[in-house]
This record gives sequence, structure tokens and C-alpha cells, in this order.
Amino acid sequence: MSGNVCHRQDNAALLALAAVSLGLITILSVWKLKQFKYGLINETGGAMFYGMLLGLAVRCVPFDRGVHTESVCSCGALNSTPTILMVNLTSHVHCYRHVGHNQRCSTTSTPHTETFDPVVLFNLFLPPIIFHGAYTLNQKRFIENIGSVLTFAFLGTIISCMTIGACVYGFTRLMVLLGQAADGDFLLTDSLLFGAIMSATDPVSVIGLLSDLRVDLDLHTLLFGESVLNDAVAVVLTHAITTYSHMGTGHTFDRLAFLHSVGYFLGVLAGSFLLGFIFAVITALLTKFTRLHESPLLETSVFFLLSWSSFLSAEACGLSGIVAVLFCGLSQARYTFHNLSCEGRTRTKQLFEVVNFLGEIFIFSYMGYELLIFPHHVFKALFISGAFLSIFISRACNIYPLSFLLNLGRTSKIPCSFQHFMTFAGLRGAVAFSLALRDTTTEKRCTIFTTTLLLVCFTIWVLGTAADPMLRYLDIRVGVDTDENPEEDLSFEVATGRPDTTPGLWHRLDYKYIKPLLTHCGPPLTDSLPQWCGAFARQQSSSPQAQEDEEQLCETETNDSTFDLAKTDNQLISFGGESGSEHQEDLVEGDLGLGTAPALSREA
Amino acid sequence: MSGNVCHRQDNAALLALAAVSLGLITILSVWKLKQFKYGLINETGGAMFYGMLLGLAVRCVPFDRGVHTESVCSCGALNSTPTILMVNLTSHVHCYRHVGHNQRCSTTSTPHTETFDPVVLFNLFLPPIIFHGAYTLNQKRFIENIGSVLTFAFLGTIISCMTIGACVYGFTRLMVLLGQAADGDFLLTDSLLFGAIMSATDPVSVIGLLSDLRVDLDLHTLLFGESVLNDAVAVVLTHAITTYSHMGTGHTFDRLAFLHSVGYFLGVLAGSFLLGFIFAVITALLTKFTRLHESPLLETSVFFLLSWSSFLSAEACGLSGIVAVLFCGLSQARYTFHNLSCEGRTRTKQLFEVVNFLGEIFIFSYMGYELLIFPHHVFKALFISGAFLSIFISRACNIYPLSFLLNLGRTSKIPCSFQHFMTFAGLRGAVAFSLALRDTTTEKRCTIFTTTLLLVCFTIWVLGTAADPMLRYLDIRVGVDTDENPEEDLSFEVATGRPDTTPGLWHRLDYKYIKPLLTHCGPPLTDSLPQWCGAFARQQSSSPQAQEDEEQLCETETNDSTFDLAKTDNQLISFGGESGSEHQEDLVEGDLGLGTAPALSREA
Repeated sequence: MSGNVCHRQDNAALLALAAVSLGLITILSVWKLKQFKYGLINETGGAMFYGMLLGLAVRCVPFDRGVHTESVCSCGALNSTPTILMVNLTSHVHCYRHVGHNQRCSTTSTPHTETFDPVVLFNLFLPPIIFHGAYTLNQKRFIENIGSVLTFAFLGTIISCMTIGACVYGFTRLMVLLGQAADGDFLLTDSLLFGAIMSATDPVSVIGLLSDLRVDLDLHTLLFGESVLNDAVAVVLTHAITTYSHMGTGHTFDRLAFLHSVGYFLGVLAGSFLLGFIFAVITALLTKFTRLHESPLLETSVFFLLSWSSFLSAEACGLSGIVAVLFCGLSQARYTFHNLSCEGRTRTKQLFEVVNFLGEIFIFSYMGYELLIFPHHVFKALFISGAFLSIFISRACNIYPLSFLLNLGRTSKIPCSFQHFMTFAGLRGAVAFSLALRDTTTEKRCTIFTTTLLLVCFTIWVLGTAADPMLRYLDIRVGVDTDENPEEDLSFEVATGRPDTTPGLWHRLDYKYIKPLLTHCGPPLTDSLPQWCGAFARQQSSSPQAQEDEEQLCETETNDSTFDLAKTDNQLISFGGESGSEHQEDLVEGDLGLGTAPALSREA
Repeated sequence: MSGNVCHRQDNAALLALAAVSLGLITILSVWKLKQFKYGLINETGGAMFYGMLLGLAVRCVPFDRGVHTESVCSCGALNSTPTILMVNLTSHVHCYRHVGHNQRCSTTSTPHTETFDPVVLFNLFLPPIIFHGAYTLNQKRFIENIGSVLTFAFLGTIISCMTIGACVYGFTRLMVLLGQAADGDFLLTDSLLFGAIMSATDPVSVIGLLSDLRVDLDLHTLLFGESVLNDAVAVVLTHAITTYSHMGTGHTFDRLAFLHSVGYFLGVLAGSFLLGFIFAVITALLTKFTRLHESPLLETSVFFLLSWSSFLSAEACGLSGIVAVLFCGLSQARYTFHNLSCEGRTRTKQLFEVVNFLGEIFIFSYMGYELLIFPHHVFKALFISGAFLSIFISRACNIYPLSFLLNLGRTSKIPCSFQHFMTFAGLRGAVAFSLALRDTTTEKRCTIFTTTLLLVCFTIWVLGTAADPMLRYLDIRVGVDTDENPEEDLSFEVATGRPDTTPGLWHRLDYKYIKPLLTHCGPPLTDSLPQWCGAFARQQSSSPQAQEDEEQLCETETNDSTFDLAKTDNQLISFGGESGSEHQEDLVEGDLGLGTAPALSREA
């Protein structure tokens, strides 16, 4: 083994070791703090703190790398930044890939000593985190509140983006007036881009916060559902605005570019959604019609690989991987989960739990590290103040009016205390950071990056720490058991005589056709499908092992308490006997999932 | 986001997607084949095959990368191969790390189109595989056969290395005689290096083979234990020979260099062993004295990170990561495992199982891929034939004489049929490949790499496929239940009145001091330690939660059937009442773990 390779490997191992030690220290210290009831700091905040310490250490103690550097030739013919640089050394062809992260804007000459490739880091860790968020979302609560969650996620994110954009744009104009920036440094599109980046509230830190405090389940679903889904909107919005600004002229409004970016927004969102759904369908069919569940290891591996494929395929197709993996996670929980063996369910859940936990720690450590080690920070006091102000204003403009509108349609209103807390708990995290990191080639993008990083630190440390006192101040119920008693819900259904599923066209479609097609639950397809589809329906429901599997799976169903919907569905079938579709008659038309059904049971 | 970054990301995603799809196809097709009772091809062989298909596709369809390439400047001042190449583009400092894999020897001008970095691949996947192998080794059987396993692993590997080296050296002399190579192309040290590389039999494919066929448990332990431990020996031997050849003069024997390399061999082996053990001790103490087991997620994460740290620390210290992680795995199974909560045990096992399974598939796919895509293959017919011949000769020289010697000391002899099968089942795999891959800068190293790859393919496909018929031909018991009935072993102990642990100094030390110190099992330290250590012993055994934990853990113990030793130990304590150390009196002195104890029970 040559000495060079050896040295390089040692260095790589040293850095990886630093990262692993960081993770260990974070886990142990946060856990120890929690034991002593200092619940104020959670994993994400702790990880960021230790990441900063590592960054500080690397910055202060620039360890000798023992590498002999010499300038061998200079070259004036290269004007642009190439993607790949091929270097021919003594007739060996060497191909160096250009790492985007190194495309920096400043003119500092300090070599950037880091070795973590953020693209690899995010491609490796972010998808499982987002997937885990979607996969473990309490399906029943989510579907009850789906209307509200979607309103906050879609409409709310767009409102947020506009408000932050407008507010920050005002501050950039002020900067021009005060002579701190040249006219044209920050266009409206840049402000809107910043708005889109900052409008992604972070599911990772939000779930950290909510799980620790175990708040009211409706508030949990609203906040977490919103933070998971608004990532998707923010990601696509960021891309759409980038597309617009690449096409547009900057100052004037370009209708064509606007339409193009709106089309792009809708196209990418729909495409990514579809791709995520397709991968979930593939997994569901594979687990339904094969005997994969006989080997939980194979089942888990296939599940893991197919779910990750949804991310990779979307990225390879130029769509949004995060959106795809998000919808894939939602659909996997809704369909594939029912086809897994009991051990397979536990394994997939636990596997993603560990990957999510470690990924979270690494990503937040990396953010802390980057805050101190990134060599091209651009601090603009006015921009930062504007951004700080805007995130609160935007959050208020998003939550209060939308809650008011939603409360008109909800039977279980969103109380004022929930609204205050939702406004308060707009933590930003990994997605905002990764969106800002994607491009740091120009000075304004560096300003955006620095400001994003500061805001992420601020919201996680200050707002995250203040969440506990805030909950007490607002008198919101904490310490709720997340694994709520399913019997309670069932008894409600039996008492009222109607199932606890939210109706509407999609739900009817889902219950009657998609669920029976992809799982062994729901009414038989032979009942739902028209006469002329009889052969297909029979083939779908009477696969050789279908009956046997169904029995086995429905037995295992009772062992799991997290995914209540699964149980509820099955129990509905058993209550309804042969005619599962009869229940549909009872569904109330026109309810948009604004939280109607469960209100009675909870308010009683 | 700039177009370049976007394009690069798409390409990376595309490659990752190809890898993931490959994994999926492998899993599904091998599983399907197994369902139809075509048990001949296992995962590793299948993965290699699909990897080759991918390599063929990439080679035949060189997809357009849409990159504009232009030669911008030439440079004559660079004579050596630098580790890091710093390229200053329009005043941004770009730092390109030199990828060792690209240090190629040939003069072909085809650009190497691959993007997988094998160093990352092996640092990521190999440690969990080796760890999993060590961690899931049947502890009881392993300790019963430890003498034989160590003899095969240490003495056997050195014999193998020498035999292959001598045989291949003979063939290289023949090549010189036939004019196919110049005198001095292949030195004796190169042949010995090849011998060291090829003497690592592969635990991954061996376990694949043995688990599928479920052979006799003693044969399983001997083969698997040997293949796990000889990796460590082969890795360190390879490094030691490299060290010698860097110091030595080549043709003549250099005593100083020889002593240096022997010292290096012993030092690295001991250092790596110690480091692995230290990390296991840290994990054991952490899990013994803290309440980590209250959260299985934290427990699993800490366990995972600390185990991985052993690999990284060893690599960072210039020791052997594989050896460290191997001993760490063995010690974790022996000590830490007892301190984990019931869920923690299942989780760690399942987590490593999934990582191991996926890692295995990716590594073997990569080998198949590399066979077709590596641009600098050097095929030397005579060298390859010599190598083919030598691996069989060396295996025979290793197994038969050592078995004869061991049988002199064993009460349960190693039957001839076992010896034949052990000679036959010398599959080579990931470790040999990774050792050969570490350096491909010179033509002889490329020859070694190509030959290694061919031998790996041959042993996995041909020998792997022929294993099943061979077992039938040799009339070896297959279809044995790996989770043997622990009651049976216990009744034997009760009947003979002595515990089923192999004695000796190490075992006495382990049972009396290390186990009670690191776990809650074994006799209390207050009994084992001398009087003057009383305070320390009491402190170790009477930590606030020790008693309570012990009870809880010993309850959970009964739920697990794989790690029989754990159970046996605990049951011994409960049978022996207060005086756990009394059992030691019954231990037969001088037995080296050659398989004495269980022979009676099995032969009965």
C-alpha cells in the first residue's frame, strides 16, 4: 500500500472518527441532561452545539496534514468553472469531479479544509429522516386533520414565502438607501427565494420537541403534518423561483417566465408525488403477491431499497427527491405496512428509527460545524434583522388567518392557545439549510446561506428551549400518551354507528379500490368493481396465498398499536361482516377532513 | 442551483439508483430461485453476476455525460503522483483529493468512467459485515472449538501464505524461463504478498453457504470461525510483507527488514486487538453503569457508533480496522450483549443483519462490476494458472496436517469428511479483493488484482455452487437447526456436574474477573478479588441500580436462544447458588479448547 493512500485513508478515518465521536458525545450528554430533568436542550440543539465546538477546534488548531505542496504550473486559458476537471498525470488519466460545495463566492485564499461532502451527507441522511417522519405519522389523526394540514402546508407556505420575501425586500431596499448595498444586489426574486427557503419548518426538530413534551395529539398532528408537507412545497417553490430568476429579467415582471415557473412548480410537485406513489405501489404489490413476508430480513431490505429508490429516481429525473420520498413514506404507511409480517413492521420501524436518529445528529452537527468552518460567510446586519423579523411576521400571517378560515369548517376548532403555539413553534432546520447550501456561488447566495444558518441556530436553540415554558404559559396539555387507546376510538364508532374515516372522493376511491388492490384489507374488489371487471377483481383477491396471508396478517395486526387506522379498518370489516361497502353509505358528504369526527369523542 | 451542480447530482443519483436497483434485482431473483429450490446460487454469486451485467452495460453503452471537455493547459513540471492536487480557478481555491483508486499502472488512455469510491464503499460496508460475523458467532461452540479455530486461523493462514507464495513464485520463474516476464518483474516478496492476500477465506460467502445448507454445527464453527479470524491474520500479514518489501532490497534476505516486519505483524495484531477490546469495554461499562437500557434506541445507537469507532480509530492510528472491529464484535457479544435490554439485543442484531445483508450485496455487486469496468486488467495466463493451482495445494497443506495435529488433542476428532469439505470450501471474497485493491499502481499489482478478482469469481461461483453436491457426496449432515436446544446442553452439564466452559488461564480470568467487572453475570467480584481490593469490588457490584438491573436482565436472558453461552453462564450461577467460583474447581487443566467437552453429549 502506498504511503499516500495510507495517509489519505488515515485522514478520512480521523474525520469520520471525529464525526462519530461527536455523535456519541451528543447522544450521551443530551441523554444525561434529560435524566437530570434538564429537558430544555434536545438532541438537535446539542448536536449543533458540539458541531460548533468541532468547527472551532478545526479552525483554531489547523492540524498539519504533512502534505508537500508546490505550484507546478499556472494556466490562463480557463475562464469558466468546469464540472469535471480531467488531469493527465504522467499519462494516467485522472478524473476529478467538481464538488459543488467548493464553488465559493469570496476571494479569501484560505484553503477550505473540510472533507465532508454535503451532497453525499444529505443524499444519505435526509431521505430516511423525511421518510421516517412520513412513515410514522399517526395515520388516523393525519387523515382526520388532512384538510387543515394541507391548507397550512400549501397555502400557508406560499403565504410565508410571500411575506418573508416582501419583508426582506423592504429591508434590502433600506440597505440600498443606507448605502450598505448597491441597487440590484438583491432583486425581489432573491428575497422571494429566501422566503421559499425559510418557509420550510423543520420536521426533525419539531418532532424532537413534540415527542419530548408529548403535547396534545391534535396539535402534534397539525404541527408535524404541516412541517413534513411544507418541506415539499418549500423545496419545489425554491426550484420554481430559481427557474423564474434564471429566465426572467430581474426587475420587470416576466409573464412567460412566471407561467413557466408556476408550471414547473405544479409539474415537479405532481411528478414527485406520482413517483413516490409509484414506488409505494410497487412495494405494496410486491409484498402482497409474493411470499416475501416469510423472511422479514428480505422484506425489510426490499422495503428499504424501494423507498430509497423513490428518492434517487426523483433526483435522477430532475424532480424533487424529498417530495417523492415524503409521499412514498405516506403511501407505504397506508398500504405496504398492511402487507408486512409482524416482524417486518417492527423491523422497518426500528431500522428507520435508528437511521433517522443518527442522521438527525449528523446533520445538525454538520450545521453547527459549517457555521464556524464555512470560509465565505457574509454577515449583513440589516438583512439578518429583516430576516429575523420576517419569520415571526410570516408565521403569524400564515397561522392566524388560516386557522380562522379553517375554524369555520371544523367541528373541533383550533383553540387560540394552539394557534399561538403554532406561530411560536416555527423551527427551521435541515431542509432550509440544504436548500441554502445548494448554491453558494455568488455573494447574495452566501448572504442567504449565512442568514439561514443563523436563523436555524436561533430557532432551534432559543425557540426550542422556550417551547416548554411556552406550553405551560399557554396552558396546553402535555404528557399525553401518543399510543392512544384504540379501544376508545372503536367504542366511539360502535356508539355512533359510523366509521371514523374521513370521507370525500379520494377516501371513497382509496377505501373501495386502492386499498383492496394493494393490501388484503378493505371490501373485496369483486364488490367494488363493475361487473365487467369481474375476472380482474377475482384474480386480485384470490391469489393462491391471499386468503391464508390475510388471516395471518390480520392476526398480527392486533399486536400493533401505533397504526390505529389499520386496526380500525380491519375491525370495521369484521363488524360489517360481508358488506364492507355498506359503511360507505354512512359517510357524511362534503366533509373535507377538517377534524370533524373525533371531536365528539374527545370533547365528551 | 447552478446547472453544473444539478447535472452532477443527477449523475450521482443515477449511479446510486443503478446500485440500488442492482441490489433489488439481486435480492428478488436469488430469493425467487431459492423458492424454486434452485439453491445453487446464493446472494453473493447473484450479486456478482448482476454487478458484471451492470459493468457490461456501462462498458457497451458509454452514456453521454453532456460535459464539454477541452484541454486548457499542459504541464511538464509534475513528476510524481501527488496526494492532493490544488487547482486555483479564477481565484477560488479548489482542493481535489487524490483518489488512490485512480493510481493506475497502464498506459491506456480510456478515461475511467466509474464514480463509486471503493475506499468509501469498503469503509462503509466492510466493518459492519465483519462485525456482524463476529457478533453472531455462536459463542458457546466458538469457545469449545477456540483452540482449533485459532490454530487454523493463525498457523493455517501463515502456512497458506507460504505455500501460495512458493507455488506462485515457481510459476513466475517459469514465466521468466519461457520469456513471458523479465527477471525481477516478480520478486519472492510479491509472490508472498499475493499469498497473504489470497489466504483470507471469506466469512461473507462462507456464512452464506453454511447458513443456506445448515451444515453440522461443529463444521460450521470451524469453517466460519477460521474464515473470520484469518481475515485479521491475512490483513496484517499483507501489511507486514508490504513493509518488508518497502524496506528490503528485494532479492536478498534482509534480516533487519524481516525482524521489522515480524514486529510490525505482532504489533499491529496486538494493537488492533487491544483497540477493539477497549471499545468493547467502553461499551460494556457504559451499558452496565448507566440507565441507557431504558431507551433501546439510544442503546442501539451508542452500541453501533462505538463499534464503528473501533474500526475508525484503528484506521486513524495506522492499525488494522478490520482486526479491531472483529475483536470488538467478539468482545461485544461476550460482554456488552449481557448488559443490553431485551429489545436492545434484538435491535442490535437486526440492525447489523440488515446492514450486513445490504453491504454484502453491494460489495459483491461491486466486485462483479469492477471485473468488467477496471481499465487496467493484466491477464498473465501462467500466473493465473499457478494461482489457481496454489489455492488448492495451500488449502490442503493447511487443513490436513493441522487437523491431524489437532485430532491428537481433541476428544471429538475432526472427521475426514469435514477435512475434505474444509479443504474444498476455501472461498475468497471481499477481504482478498479489498487487499488487492489497495494498491494498483504498478503492473505487478495490477496482475495480482486481476488474478485475485478471477479467483474470487471462480471460488464463489464454482466452489459455492458445488458445495451442496459435495456435502451430499461426503455424507455430511445438513439441515441442522442452528438454534440448538439449550436445554440439552444444560442437562449435560447437570449430569456431568461440571460447566460446559473451556478452561485455561484466559477462561479463568474471564470468568472470575472480566465478566463480573463488565457485566452483571458471573461470580461476585467480592469473592474473586483479593481482600485488599474489597472496596473496589463492592463498588463495582453494588452500584445503585446493579441489583435491579441484574434481575431484569437475567429475566430477559431467557427470551433469547442464539447466544447460548449467556444463558448457560447465568444458569450455572443459579445452580451453583452463592459460590459461583466453586465450579472453577471442576475445570480440567490444560485443555486448550480443542473441542473436548461437548463431544460426550453429541456422541452419546
